[in-house]
Amino acid sequence: MLPFAFKKLIYYGYKKGMMRMFGCVFCQIAAREKPSTILYEDEQCIVFQDVNPKAPVHVLVVPRKHIPSLNENMPQDNALLGHLLAVAAHMAKEKGIEGTGYRIVINTNAEAGQTVFHLHLHVMGGRIMRWPPG
Amino acid sequence: MLPFAFKKLIYYGYKKGMMRMFGCVFCQIAAREKPSTILYEDEQCIVFQDVNPKAPVHVLVVPRKHIPSLNENMPQDNALLGHLLAVAAHMAKEKGIEGTGYRIVINTNAEAGQTVFHLHLHVMGGRIMRWPPG
Repeated sequence: MLPFAFKKLIYYGYKKGMMRMFGCVFCQIAAREKPSTILYEDEQCIVFQDVNPKAPVHVLVVPRKHIPSLNENMPQDNALLGHLLAVAAHMAKEKGIEGTGYRIVINTNAEAGQTVFHLHLHVMGGRIMRWPPG
Repeated sequence: MLPFAFKKLIYYGYKKGMMRMFGCVFCQIAAREKPSTILYEDEQCIVFQDVNPKAPVHVLVVPRKHIPSLNENMPQDNALLGHLLAVAAHMAKEKGIEGTGYRIVINTNAEAGQTVFHLHLHVMGGRIMRWPPG
């Protein structure tokens, strides 16, 4: 038996390879090649429902530009990254949870549980979030 | 007996009031009025260890500017917010966890568990992070 951590790393390696072969699902959603309920969009990003929500409000803020993760972020993308956080706060207001509260989560690579290698922000709320965050 | 959620909201109201009376602990750390082990700093932000770490790596990225939360973020702060994310990624590299992975968490208001009302990013890694994130 392989330890869980090792299997997880193999799985992510496989997933990254598959994405290189078949393209990026978030790029496909942004290009309307794949159906999704888009809740907000502007020239820099799109927002849609997480397919496996873990809170009453759970949306993803995704830049149109394909940045695999925060590791590949370039200094010229700083304004874009800030815009993504501003849009996350805007979505919280749209959903009426800016007063009660919301958590923003960005996962990078395997141990954090990044499953799609196109940078995205989780915006979660509508319930009391526990600590630690996973 | 008051329900837990209600007590939590009272506690946060109290905490916000205390902060208004006695000043902001993160502003004090940034001004070197309060001791802390600062791991990184530049003209826009500081980074220091979380006092109650929940992972082998758990640091806070804090802007020098006092922004209570993402709700109070202004459009002119977008570049600053992006810089905070870039510094978070930089800290992950410094700590040697950019390959294995790291999670960035930003809490806003009571239900997300925001305890200091000065915007801050948690950067966590060095272990497998679970899902959901709290």
